[in-house]
Amino acid sequence: MAKTPETEHPVKAFGWAARDTSGTFSPINFSRRATDERDVQFKVLYCGICHSDLHMSKNEWGFTQYPVVPGHEIVGVVTEVGNKVEKFKIGDKVGVGCLVGSCRQCDQCTDDLENYCPKQIISFNSTYVDGTVTYGGFSDIMVADEYYVIRWPENFPLDVGAPLLCAGITMYSPLRYFGLDKPGLNVGVVGLGGLGHVGVKFAKAFGAKVTVISTSISKKKEAIEHLGADEFLVSSDPEQLQAGASTLDGIIDTVSAVHPLAPLLSLLKPHGKLVLVGIPPEPLEIPVFPLLSGRKAVVGSVIGGIKETQEMIDFAAKHNVLPDVEMIPIDYVNTAMERLLKSDVKYRFVIDVAKSLKSE
Amino acid sequence: MAKTPETEHPVKAFGWAARDTSGTFSPINFSRRATDERDVQFKVLYCGICHSDLHMSKNEWGFTQYPVVPGHEIVGVVTEVGNKVEKFKIGDKVGVGCLVGSCRQCDQCTDDLENYCPKQIISFNSTYVDGTVTYGGFSDIMVADEYYVIRWPENFPLDVGAPLLCAGITMYSPLRYFGLDKPGLNVGVVGLGGLGHVGVKFAKAFGAKVTVISTSISKKKEAIEHLGADEFLVSSDPEQLQAGASTLDGIIDTVSAVHPLAPLLSLLKPHGKLVLVGIPPEPLEIPVFPLLSGRKAVVGSVIGGIKETQEMIDFAAKHNVLPDVEMIPIDYVNTAMERLLKSDVKYRFVIDVAKSLKSE
Repeated sequence: MAKTPETEHPVKAFGWAARDTSGTFSPINFSRRATDERDVQFKVLYCGICHSDLHMSKNEWGFTQYPVVPGHEIVGVVTEVGNKVEKFKIGDKVGVGCLVGSCRQCDQCTDDLENYCPKQIISFNSTYVDGTVTYGGFSDIMVADEYYVIRWPENFPLDVGAPLLCAGITMYSPLRYFGLDKPGLNVGVVGLGGLGHVGVKFAKAFGAKVTVISTSISKKKEAIEHLGADEFLVSSDPEQLQAGASTLDGIIDTVSAVHPLAPLLSLLKPHGKLVLVGIPPEPLEIPVFPLLSGRKAVVGSVIGGIKETQEMIDFAAKHNVLPDVEMIPIDYVNTAMERLLKSDVKYRFVIDVAKSLKSE
Repeated sequence: MAKTPETEHPVKAFGWAARDTSGTFSPINFSRRATDERDVQFKVLYCGICHSDLHMSKNEWGFTQYPVVPGHEIVGVVTEVGNKVEKFKIGDKVGVGCLVGSCRQCDQCTDDLENYCPKQIISFNSTYVDGTVTYGGFSDIMVADEYYVIRWPENFPLDVGAPLLCAGITMYSPLRYFGLDKPGLNVGVVGLGGLGHVGVKFAKAFGAKVTVISTSISKKKEAIEHLGADEFLVSSDPEQLQAGASTLDGIIDTVSAVHPLAPLLSLLKPHGKLVLVGIPPEPLEIPVFPLLSGRKAVVGSVIGGIKETQEMIDFAAKHNVLPDVEMIPIDYVNTAMERLLKSDVKYRFVIDVAKSLKSE
């Protein structure tokens, strides 16, 4: 008999899975591998919900393997370590983000850029080195090679901090790599969702003057009074675009719908960078003249490497960068996904896994 | 009576101009300003023909002021200098490229990036500080502020070298700025025209392994045997694209027609840069996923600053980087423009101005 998710590994696990393209979640018994010599097993306490969990649960990217247990902003407390584990001991607070594996040999891996390794293994819906499918943090326990486990800073909240493991590093890494981490720079953030609101906080922590760019005026008060942005600009308003022309050193664009880039490019200073971190389903149009006349760049960025993720968490703890979250029990996940689809959350759902996940 | 091109300045000049959107050239009597205290006046010996001369002569960018005297790859011998000129004396060999003015005060100018100054003044069809229209190198004499005049290296040919002043710097500047000037890098060049063929030569001079990328196999022999490229890749061939995937550190794309970027992005290594130097008339489509998954960049670049143009010419002289040109008399210019439109030139027309331009 073929092995099932419940029988393929020796360690019993329990979580919530989507089983078809409806993306509807329900409880699932599955299993985790035995803790290998370099593995860290931990009890999951909290897990953030990212938009890509939603995409994947509905197979919107076309490669979902059902049943899928998403969740890649996973924090908890170590329950078991392999005999060659050096960095962690039982009781340590830890996190696992998007990555649980990579080749460790290619140029990307040797440069601490496992997030660009072509053989990277994602925390869920990916094939692990043993040939089994990975399952994410919508579950009671997690196991991962210690290399991919992040040490949680002392006195830094696990619950509210969980979304930093994907949303946080997604914004932190391009701010650093593209030189937008210097005090006094003018940084724009497009879209004020799970990613964008953390981007505002990181950019402020780096000392930037932050402009939130949105298609609607409705988020202005929130952006400035609550999140601490310095300016708010409505990208559909020609007068505001004119006033803001050539003022920004860089823009992080979190929008995952098709949208015009020309207004954003106009806001960049010469040599400025428009960093895309959302993935629209169709190609975007770039007007070439503004790129040339200002030596501007349209670039992409996706999460960050493990070393940089640790650096990001340590920076966040030092500078008190914390997402705004709405804590939910796991049986609220279907409603949460519906609300996420409507951007009806400020700004990230976090599942209180330990308190709400009850095995049947 | 309103001043005409012939009467507005005291110094008589003669050249060839296009007078309407047909772009047909015919002789014109016009005038140049008296040599001001910081000006250098020089007898034009040779002038290259760039595709933008063609665009402008037909008003394809919508802001041509007729009559237009194009030409911005202008070389000659100094005939007069203003009393405050420090760098040049009568008899010096000099060149003027695209730029004859800029604000000299903005961040771009103070960073030696006059080519990105919003108030830059172009060698022709631009409005000079005195309010008159600038005229380019399809003429017997030229005058320019010494700041914008390039010193020609000893023993470096003026005739064949002329196109370096636009085509050369257009390729040199992005190779340098985007770090594609290191020995051993893999650099792609898309399009083998006036820009592309010089790009191959500069990239080789920097020590790169150069791949010419084209939609057609027809230029392979020429690219490799004549221009010295190392590889040739047909971008419409899926097998060649597959074999070349993730191999290039950067690509300079000289194509000025609408064309797909996805195949080019696939050829870039992670963190690679696709540099656009052509200006397609419509926006280009960029697929976002490849940008993100490899932190790749689509960037633009336009000519270079004055200091860098001097550096480029000195580098070209030292490394014997010279365009391939077809020398023509000025009364061949209408035929040359027709041939240029069909890319029927290897690879740049240069007008032998001094020998062929005869005042009526």
